[in-house]
Amino acid sequence: MTKSKPSKLLLRALSGETLTRPPVWLMRQAGRYLPEYRELRTRAGSFLELCYTPELAAEVTLQPIRRFGFDAAILFADLPLVADALGQKLDYRDGEGPVLEPVRSVGDLARLDLARLHPRLAPVYETVRRVAQALPNDVALIGFAGAPWTVATYMVEGGGSPDHAITKRWALGDPEGFQRLIDLLSDAIAQYLLKQIEAGAEAVQVFDSWAGALPASDFRRWCIEPVARIVRTLKAQYPDVPVIAFPRGAGMHYAGFARSTGADAVSLDSAVPLEWAREHVQRDGCVQGNLDPQVLVIGGEAMRRETDRILQILGRGPLVFNLGHGIVPATPLEHVARLVEQVKGWTG
Amino acid sequence: MTKSKPSKLLLRALSGETLTRPPVWLMRQAGRYLPEYRELRTRAGSFLELCYTPELAAEVTLQPIRRFGFDAAILFADLPLVADALGQKLDYRDGEGPVLEPVRSVGDLARLDLARLHPRLAPVYETVRRVAQALPNDVALIGFAGAPWTVATYMVEGGGSPDHAITKRWALGDPEGFQRLIDLLSDAIAQYLLKQIEAGAEAVQVFDSWAGALPASDFRRWCIEPVARIVRTLKAQYPDVPVIAFPRGAGMHYAGFARSTGADAVSLDSAVPLEWAREHVQRDGCVQGNLDPQVLVIGGEAMRRETDRILQILGRGPLVFNLGHGIVPATPLEHVARLVEQVKGWTG
Repeated sequence: MTKSKPSKLLLRALSGETLTRPPVWLMRQAGRYLPEYRELRTRAGSFLELCYTPELAAEVTLQPIRRFGFDAAILFADLPLVADALGQKLDYRDGEGPVLEPVRSVGDLARLDLARLHPRLAPVYETVRRVAQALPNDVALIGFAGAPWTVATYMVEGGGSPDHAITKRWALGDPEGFQRLIDLLSDAIAQYLLKQIEAGAEAVQVFDSWAGALPASDFRRWCIEPVARIVRTLKAQYPDVPVIAFPRGAGMHYAGFARSTGADAVSLDSAVPLEWAREHVQRDGCVQGNLDPQVLVIGGEAMRRETDRILQILGRGPLVFNLGHGIVPATPLEHVARLVEQVKGWTG
Repeated sequence: MTKSKPSKLLLRALSGETLTRPPVWLMRQAGRYLPEYRELRTRAGSFLELCYTPELAAEVTLQPIRRFGFDAAILFADLPLVADALGQKLDYRDGEGPVLEPVRSVGDLARLDLARLHPRLAPVYETVRRVAQALPNDVALIGFAGAPWTVATYMVEGGGSPDHAITKRWALGDPEGFQRLIDLLSDAIAQYLLKQIEAGAEAVQVFDSWAGALPASDFRRWCIEPVARIVRTLKAQYPDVPVIAFPRGAGMHYAGFARSTGADAVSLDSAVPLEWAREHVQRDGCVQGNLDPQVLVIGGEAMRRETDRILQILGRGPLVFNLGHGIVPATPLEHVARLVEQVKGWTG
């Protein structure tokens, strides 16, 4: 069997290749810091309608590619969509983020139904198809989903929360019951990502944004194992589609995370020291990250210096240049342009 | 020179001794989960008045000792008091936490004055004296303060914040200016702790509650170095008073933290794996922690099992049993009683 080698920079890096200069994209690169996004947003109805309208969601996905020439586009969507697609009522209130009718017991799981998933998410798959058609030849398309633990926190808390207290109490106090929610989510998320791949996603990223909230003794059960299960399901059908795992805030659990989950690449938050990451994470494959989003807000010499440090320390191995967390609305456009220029111009 | 050996369990553990059973106290053990606290709170005026009224603050400090027989009392106060004492307007609004008039530039530092510190904090020192007088012979008294980085986040943001964005931008964009705030705070906090020791505190804990928000490249400058500076100042006058450092969320930076700061003991958050902590932190001395506060809310078998794991893995070396973060208001009293009973009854 011969296998064609990927030619897009992102896919080459994710497959473990060390490149002359790393590919660059930024988490939440489509969003409120862009005037063209804010303009389009006023035309769309609710945030949920925006996510479910392929024409608009595709346009939003493409906006940052046109403006900055990133090496990858990432599907515009939001982590709790999968809960909505399972039948949990989801709403977005202005400035408040997602609001859901909480699921807090095994009994509540009866309200959820895997059979609704694909019909409800069909517009998202259509968005992926449209973006895949529209992207320049050298730009890769990344699909994405939240990891089971992180999606569960939204479902159980009923939205974002500072401490995920109710979710933790369920997970710690009734692990068998909570496992049923996590298993359902693992299946749903894997199916969701498979459909994104079928529709044209060339890589996928699994966001475990609240991995850092897990007590140490529960990290394996609620972060590593569900992510590993999703990776296995994806790899069984699409062994060559790379998976990026982002266990934000995982601290020392970042060591060996690619091996323990089967992910091809690991996305580093900004608290991870670069030398440590080179030694404990990059030795297993590609790493992604990890400029602090606030450094991008500041720009100037601080940004130039921190960007160069990442390139110098992690750029000698497989690297995807990115932030350590999503871009924030206060980010000046010219800083993003300069960052992309610096990464693209790096010659090692 | 002979030096008398400490006899209180807490002080013996902090000095590096492995005990038959570890001492136990809980962060935020004085507070809203206690009916006697809530009752007293209705009699006091504002939260700030409570902190500054020695009779009441001492009573609040003693309440959990009477009820549960902890091995240590910790001064009842709050992290932003030192900002208030430097002259920054501080207010507590119900359910909102501290609100401060933000300090956001070197120019704003002119509003702060180290000379006001001790007059304003005199009632706190009086609280320490009263508690020291009133405590049973075998219970140690811990003084405390926030670390410079954490206090700075409150001062710059104007209160609590999800991402400390403004503070990070100042620190990253104008490190020389921000250093002046950190230096001022390092001095103020060291002076504050010295006075607590003079008044009767037998150990002190420095809370860097937001250490985990620091980008990796800034961790040394804004967490390790200011804490090390405070420890040096304290040790110059009171070499035998142990210092507990709590860099919450520090992840892999926990490795060697006692050595790099000079602290006697390191308090672990709940995300730190126990085996990892034994290898990378406890080899340098005493560790403290790290039961997840939500496990204390759940109680039952989960609490018994997690408590036992901490005792089994960290109890063979110097350990102070504690939570990984402050006790939460939803905590049932009987769970606390059972936890203390389990730790005190542990026979290895």
